[in-house]
Amino acid sequence: RCHQHSKAMLDISFPPFCAFLGSLGLLCVALVGTWCQHWRGGFSLDGGSRTFNWHPVLMVTGLVVLYGAAALVYRVPSTWSGPKLPWKLLHGGLALGAFVLTVLGLAAVFRFHNSNGTPNMYSLHSWMGLGTVLLFSCQVGASPDPPNSPRHPELSSPHRVFPQWAAGFGAFLLPWAPAWLRQLYKPIHVFFGSTILLLSTASCVSGINEKLFFSLKNGTTQYKLLPAEAVFANTLGILILLFGVLVVGALARPSWKRPDSDSPDSRQVPGTQ
Amino acid sequence: RCHQHSKAMLDISFPPFCAFLGSLGLLCVALVGTWCQHWRGGFSLDGGSRTFNWHPVLMVTGLVVLYGAAALVYRVPSTWSGPKLPWKLLHGGLALGAFVLTVLGLAAVFRFHNSNGTPNMYSLHSWMGLGTVLLFSCQVGASPDPPNSPRHPELSSPHRVFPQWAAGFGAFLLPWAPAWLRQLYKPIHVFFGSTILLLSTASCVSGINEKLFFSLKNGTTQYKLLPAEAVFANTLGILILLFGVLVVGALARPSWKRPDSDSPDSRQVPGTQ
Repeated sequence: RCHQHSKAMLDISFPPFCAFLGSLGLLCVALVGTWCQHWRGGFSLDGGSRTFNWHPVLMVTGLVVLYGAAALVYRVPSTWSGPKLPWKLLHGGLALGAFVLTVLGLAAVFRFHNSNGTPNMYSLHSWMGLGTVLLFSCQVGASPDPPNSPRHPELSSPHRVFPQWAAGFGAFLLPWAPAWLRQLYKPIHVFFGSTILLLSTASCVSGINEKLFFSLKNGTTQYKLLPAEAVFANTLGILILLFGVLVVGALARPSWKRPDSDSPDSRQVPGTQ
Repeated sequence: RCHQHSKAMLDISFPPFCAFLGSLGLLCVALVGTWCQHWRGGFSLDGGSRTFNWHPVLMVTGLVVLYGAAALVYRVPSTWSGPKLPWKLLHGGLALGAFVLTVLGLAAVFRFHNSNGTPNMYSLHSWMGLGTVLLFSCQVGASPDPPNSPRHPELSSPHRVFPQWAAGFGAFLLPWAPAWLRQLYKPIHVFFGSTILLLSTASCVSGINEKLFFSLKNGTTQYKLLPAEAVFANTLGILILLFGVLVVGALARPSWKRPDSDSPDSRQVPGTQ
């Protein structure tokens, strides 16, 4: 009884936790935008430092917040019953949106470096960040169950327009793959799902740290004197870490997993398994 | 059958994985030592930059590698049967060793800053790093089951010398706590166990990145020109990330958990539960 009792005390309900996570994610996006707008001069596409400013905003929005939302889709209890396809589309759509923002975020920093004659890809931040994006592109490229696979004949042809990306990205490995291969691949997809988010939050933190050392020196209060901008951006970094850890913790929590998450393709309609 | 077959293909045996992790951890320690010795002037206690060099070495050794070893103790299959106490002592001893090295690593950077009039605790790296160490001290302080608790009357008095730290650190919360409280606390200890390792690897990476920007500018090849030292230390950062992700992945892997890991104090001797 005590065992049950103490378990119940730790039981957090997913929806309020998810609402908290959503607010935290939006707060991170708002803070990174405010940082770049208020302290770093705002945004433009001219190749200068205001082009660089798209980099942190797009990375935090795409590779952290939208990515986290995509990862958590199958933890929403309503996804556990009824047809799984709409949720697959939501998961894939959010992940694709995250990927597009991520690629644009990379484009922003490369354009800034190239316009200013700065080499690309020398810092540990850049190595880790590009590694994270490459892992993410493998995840998108090898979705375990693209929605336009022959396993979803119920999807009528007009609805095939949206998931065309899956045909492009996902076709090379798994849509026509046998069940045992999907079964083999799914835990890998799940493992890298959490790993990529951890790497992306670590990349954000090292990037914010690096940017503050770059920006806060000449003509402004030095980083080491901890001006308001430094407190603001450090706080942003800590909140991004908190978001990443909470999403990965939520993903790992056994009681929030789909009851049959071991199965490679379960629609959860009783009797159809 | 296919389901079983594909599961078997993913089954990695823990001992060789653990041997690989151990080698990777030792490699990280060797590389961080080599970096500081070969490129950063070696070690001393004079308060200069050679005192700082203890900081990365002690942090990587304590808060990453030794910490990872402590976290993995209960994944060794031999811990699943027979008396659990020796393994608790090993887990606690490794964690305590990691904590001591961590505190010394903090002392090194504070001494270096103070000797040079540099402020402490301004960068995001320092906020995240100190937060990680504070979380770690809470973990050490509130071990779920200190070995000198009355629940281990079989521990004869001479053997109580070693676990005295647990009396100091662990006594305030749990040694005499009721089973329901231990039951409540254990998943928290487990969650923060992984979280701290992730934060510590993220701290290492941002620290290496920051150090390279500091060191590689005047009188040496700039970081952005990617001299040999930068390649070496960037590689170290990637290996530290790999170590952290693999340890956390191993901790999360269901088939490597103690079969009854839900129970707050299981000796796994059949019939004693």
